[in-house]
Amino acid sequence: MDGLKDYDRIIIGIDPGTNVMGYGVLGVKGKKPELIVMGVIELNKFESHYKRLHRIYERISGLVAQYLPDEMAIEAPFYGKNVQSMLKLGRAQGVAMAAALVRDIPIAEYAPLSIKQAVTGRGSASKEQVAEMLKRMLNIPVAEMPRLLDATDALAAAVTHFYETGKPQLPKGPKSWSQFIAQHPGRIVSGGKDRPGIKK
Amino acid sequence: MDGLKDYDRIIIGIDPGTNVMGYGVLGVKGKKPELIVMGVIELNKFESHYKRLHRIYERISGLVAQYLPDEMAIEAPFYGKNVQSMLKLGRAQGVAMAAALVRDIPIAEYAPLSIKQAVTGRGSASKEQVAEMLKRMLNIPVAEMPRLLDATDALAAAVTHFYETGKPQLPKGPKSWSQFIAQHPGRIVSGGKDRPGIKK
Repeated sequence: MDGLKDYDRIIIGIDPGTNVMGYGVLGVKGKKPELIVMGVIELNKFESHYKRLHRIYERISGLVAQYLPDEMAIEAPFYGKNVQSMLKLGRAQGVAMAAALVRDIPIAEYAPLSIKQAVTGRGSASKEQVAEMLKRMLNIPVAEMPRLLDATDALAAAVTHFYETGKPQLPKGPKSWSQFIAQHPGRIVSGGKDRPGIKK
Repeated sequence: MDGLKDYDRIIIGIDPGTNVMGYGVLGVKGKKPELIVMGVIELNKFESHYKRLHRIYERISGLVAQYLPDEMAIEAPFYGKNVQSMLKLGRAQGVAMAAALVRDIPIAEYAPLSIKQAVTGRGSASKEQVAEMLKRMLNIPVAEMPRLLDATDALAAAVTHFYETGKPQLPKGPKSWSQFIAQHPGRIVSGGKDRPGIKK
């Protein structure tokens, strides 16, 4: 890892969970992404739901203060097993998001499938395959690979955001001729003689 | 409203929502509750989900800094229509909770039914009935009654917390004789002669 000011952009990736929360900080130099740090916040040891939420806020705030990320990327499932677990997950996400929002850091969300697709090329890839791909892509030494895959999942969210925001943007415009014509009725020309816009 | 330091306890009640969030601050002097302030945070004007979350954090943090509550009481439904809306509600709750947790303010949650029951004596009471009861109980002038019932709902959460925490606590002990005996085998006496603990 270089000094933080050597990076053009820093992205913090978060894999939110109510038992374990993963994080991964990616530095971008030019077009090259580099691992800055990754790890997990273990929440199992806290019995109280509020203590868990407090811990998440405290740790994510700390990471944000330490690494000064420009953007936050969150892995966000849009469907869950039941409303109760989704409410709890939403709270954990909300607390992590608050730590970014308070510093005006923009947040992007990616579905688990999109992250796997972006990193490995396959939406059905396993967590181990995602970790292996990140290891190669970012030249992470084996000794630095985390025990818990929540950390690599979080880093994968940051990498996905790096890819997504680096894509050339298609210009916003009509998608078909019929749409174009509907939007610009004045541009319809019927023949050669009375074409508008052409001075004779 | 008196000076904040005249209160023995200050409770902030929150009725979280993703379109409108209500808040109500209750001051307690001895055993008497008083309205300090109530209102709503309108979120409809923000299209972006993140802007809404940011706004919630900003406003709740501001209220916490201004009124220095000792406790936060949240109206929290435990079941919702679908997982998607519960995730969004969870995020809104999480962001509001973060504003309290960061200052080590304890949080209590009450289900809507418990709040209605505590304030009006009926779990099936309407929001209007809850508002009317609070108006009488706290002598709130008509002019100060809010247009949106999210504010009175939030105040009702604070009032419920005031009631719940003021109840005499039952001592923690066995619930039945058989449980008592199982927990204290040495206390079983079989006759008069060799009763333990009685010196002759």
